[in-house]
Amino acid sequence: MATRPLQRLLTEDLSVATAGAALFAESLRAQAVPVAEAAWQPPLPGTERDLAVVLADARRQEANRLAFERMTAAGAELIDVRPAHQALGLEKGTFLHAGPPVEFDRASGPLRGALIGALLFEGLAETPEEAEARLARGDGVTLEPCHHRDAVGPMAGVISPSMWLYELRDDVHGNRSWCSLNEGLGKVLRYGAYGPEVIDRLHWMNSVLGPLLHQAVRARVDADGPIDIKAIIAQMLQMGDEGHNRNRAGSLMLLRELLPTLITADAPASDIAEAVRFSGANEHFFLNLGMPASKLATLAAHGIPGSSVVTTMARNGTDFGIRVSGTGDEWFTGPAQTPEGLFLGSYGPDDANPDIGDSAITETAGIGGFAMAAAPAIVRFVGGDVPFALRATQTMYEITVGEHPVYQVPILEFRGTPTGIDVAAVARTGILPQINTGMAGRVAGVGQVGAGLVNPPEECFTGALAALARAARIG
Amino acid sequence: MATRPLQRLLTEDLSVATAGAALFAESLRAQAVPVAEAAWQPPLPGTERDLAVVLADARRQEANRLAFERMTAAGAELIDVRPAHQALGLEKGTFLHAGPPVEFDRASGPLRGALIGALLFEGLAETPEEAEARLARGDGVTLEPCHHRDAVGPMAGVISPSMWLYELRDDVHGNRSWCSLNEGLGKVLRYGAYGPEVIDRLHWMNSVLGPLLHQAVRARVDADGPIDIKAIIAQMLQMGDEGHNRNRAGSLMLLRELLPTLITADAPASDIAEAVRFSGANEHFFLNLGMPASKLATLAAHGIPGSSVVTTMARNGTDFGIRVSGTGDEWFTGPAQTPEGLFLGSYGPDDANPDIGDSAITETAGIGGFAMAAAPAIVRFVGGDVPFALRATQTMYEITVGEHPVYQVPILEFRGTPTGIDVAAVARTGILPQINTGMAGRVAGVGQVGAGLVNPPEECFTGALAALARAARIG
Repeated sequence: MATRPLQRLLTEDLSVATAGAALFAESLRAQAVPVAEAAWQPPLPGTERDLAVVLADARRQEANRLAFERMTAAGAELIDVRPAHQALGLEKGTFLHAGPPVEFDRASGPLRGALIGALLFEGLAETPEEAEARLARGDGVTLEPCHHRDAVGPMAGVISPSMWLYELRDDVHGNRSWCSLNEGLGKVLRYGAYGPEVIDRLHWMNSVLGPLLHQAVRARVDADGPIDIKAIIAQMLQMGDEGHNRNRAGSLMLLRELLPTLITADAPASDIAEAVRFSGANEHFFLNLGMPASKLATLAAHGIPGSSVVTTMARNGTDFGIRVSGTGDEWFTGPAQTPEGLFLGSYGPDDANPDIGDSAITETAGIGGFAMAAAPAIVRFVGGDVPFALRATQTMYEITVGEHPVYQVPILEFRGTPTGIDVAAVARTGILPQINTGMAGRVAGVGQVGAGLVNPPEECFTGALAALARAARIG
Repeated sequence: MATRPLQRLLTEDLSVATAGAALFAESLRAQAVPVAEAAWQPPLPGTERDLAVVLADARRQEANRLAFERMTAAGAELIDVRPAHQALGLEKGTFLHAGPPVEFDRASGPLRGALIGALLFEGLAETPEEAEARLARGDGVTLEPCHHRDAVGPMAGVISPSMWLYELRDDVHGNRSWCSLNEGLGKVLRYGAYGPEVIDRLHWMNSVLGPLLHQAVRARVDADGPIDIKAIIAQMLQMGDEGHNRNRAGSLMLLRELLPTLITADAPASDIAEAVRFSGANEHFFLNLGMPASKLATLAAHGIPGSSVVTTMARNGTDFGIRVSGTGDEWFTGPAQTPEGLFLGSYGPDDANPDIGDSAITETAGIGGFAMAAAPAIVRFVGGDVPFALRATQTMYEITVGEHPVYQVPILEFRGTPTGIDVAAVARTGILPQINTGMAGRVAGVGQVGAGLVNPPEECFTGALAALARAARIG
């Protein structure tokens, strides 16, 4: 019999419920007494006192219910595609990046590489060496997390003022979020590559793809209204995607939505054909829509006093950082872990950089690693096996507030995905969120080396729990 | 413990294997003796003698191995789209239909409706009444099964000389197969509707869609070679489709393959936009490619003396017919059963026609109902529940020769789909093939009323077994 969380057991008609050591349950079962075992693990070390305070916070249950309700009610519609200087008011010399704040001297290889590439792309340096020197001096360059502008970026997540962004809107809560356009896989900026082919592709994306997508999305909005990204996520979970490292069906559905106005855009036929080919060939095309959709969900849940629900998980390749609904804009960080998984070509574990990217916003919103049961084929990309994929989703129910009413997993008989990570539940169970992720080469310029599985460091959650306990004592 | 086929048990390290009544196994298990139960059911009534002869046929095992090898090795590439009079040499007045041969006076409502529509479409009658009278008199009208021309048609499956067909090629065995273009759902010819909107759509498909697809496919073949339909089927099984009543991912992947040459075709931009819109809106677009691909697989396995592998399952709405590799072109028929499932709008069980269509060729080739474990979300379309979908696939292993090396089910840890129905295994176990299907209204002109689950009648298999036994006695 599978173990089940205690609170669920208490609503069932049982003879005996046991927790902890299995011996007692086994002995009962041998005597033909019906037994249900509750999953029980010791809390994260050193969290007992904070846990007691947070669990006793009278506001918490209602605050978490509200956070879950807002997170799952949030809409996500694609309404525009436009450059970052316009969409975010991003000033020349300002560069957004994934994860919590970091200075250039602590930046990981792939983030350094992406920043070098972005300076070259913006014309702020002529050579990689000049770009790196300028970044090291901080000469006319400002670094800032994407999340501080309600934007998200996969992997290094670098957004510079000239780059075009998807703009998504949550009409329910009146929020907006943004994400860059996906460059494809391999040698790409977000994985830290900055060679001429990377910069050339970025220029083509800026001069051809961005303006074409802008035309297509605007025409689509005028004719049939915005593209419902949340509805595509719900569908893709029924089509073997989990929305973080498997976006095949989502990318095809997005393409189908964009096509009618893309192929009739006012542009040279060869540009349109190339944009269709580029987008159609990219199985991760949709990731950059699923991420801001997830950001809109978590943004809606942010800022509720007493709530222990995680509203950001993000990594810059050096630190893993989380933010929590009830503790405002404070980051709780710990050292980013190195994923384990499958490697491209001759790359191996020694080539991998620690965990990087804002894409863990998908897990924060109840998809990605939390929805792996919907996407068993993903184990061929990130490692693990099919039972692991099923177990990953099932385990995440232990640390989340509820089951998503719209995002469902067919193989689990349409059970909603585990949504709304509860810092207190993580601390109490010691179960860390399951993330799947791309792996960047640790040396600037290399690009992608593989994909794998990773968890946040415990420090994020013990830190957040301590802050929640402080707030509860004051509050 | 799940029951397992006896032959598999015998290769394992067991203490006791049991078959039949569960009491013996339970009693052993209570004494802590490891037990594996073999699935055992009595053979189909009256088949004992024929079964003994067929199972003793020395050619059978090797013949079935060869049939399985050919079935799974067959290729399926889309190489052209052209009219039936050209592709099949179909003569004016000849109408192909689904299933085994049938005279008009025994034809079901949806087949009558589709034939009426096809006569109107071909200009052989001015009104439905005139068309029906002409069909009843057999005046200048010849009916013939699609399968007799190596073609397949979903539901009524009517193909008339002017209709455009997909042309697929199996390069491994040098075969070709054809299928009509999909009209979408609801009031459509293949479900027996023949109103003006149905005939108008057919004219548009003939004057715009067919020629455009012809251009697109030919240009694609010239530039990048044919479209690999078998590869799309392999992928769609990893994306929640089973290839019979769920073709969402397959349709999107086909669209992606066709797009680059479709949007650059030499035709008015409005025609191209409408063709893209029509194709993109149709979640069953791919069915008409998956069916001829399945036909190519089963065709390759046909005609092997001594083989008891089923190479055709097809229904005309009155009779269900099968053909078997070792018994040549003879049909073995029984009364088509009425599916049970989910209904559209206010339709109910009384509105449904018995099982109809060549689409059971998908199950014959190891997908469709046999691959439902890959597509748990299909239960929302055809009825049943998720455990049923898993069980359906797992049960089909009991009556098939092997596991498909290319078509795999991720949730079953990438196990190949059960492929190659063995008439002897069906007779021995009494397990009938699991088919999922659209449901046509039983009255001509109504169109689709739902979708559901159905099995072939036993008579097909007892008849085929008797013929195999006769052939074995002759030797």
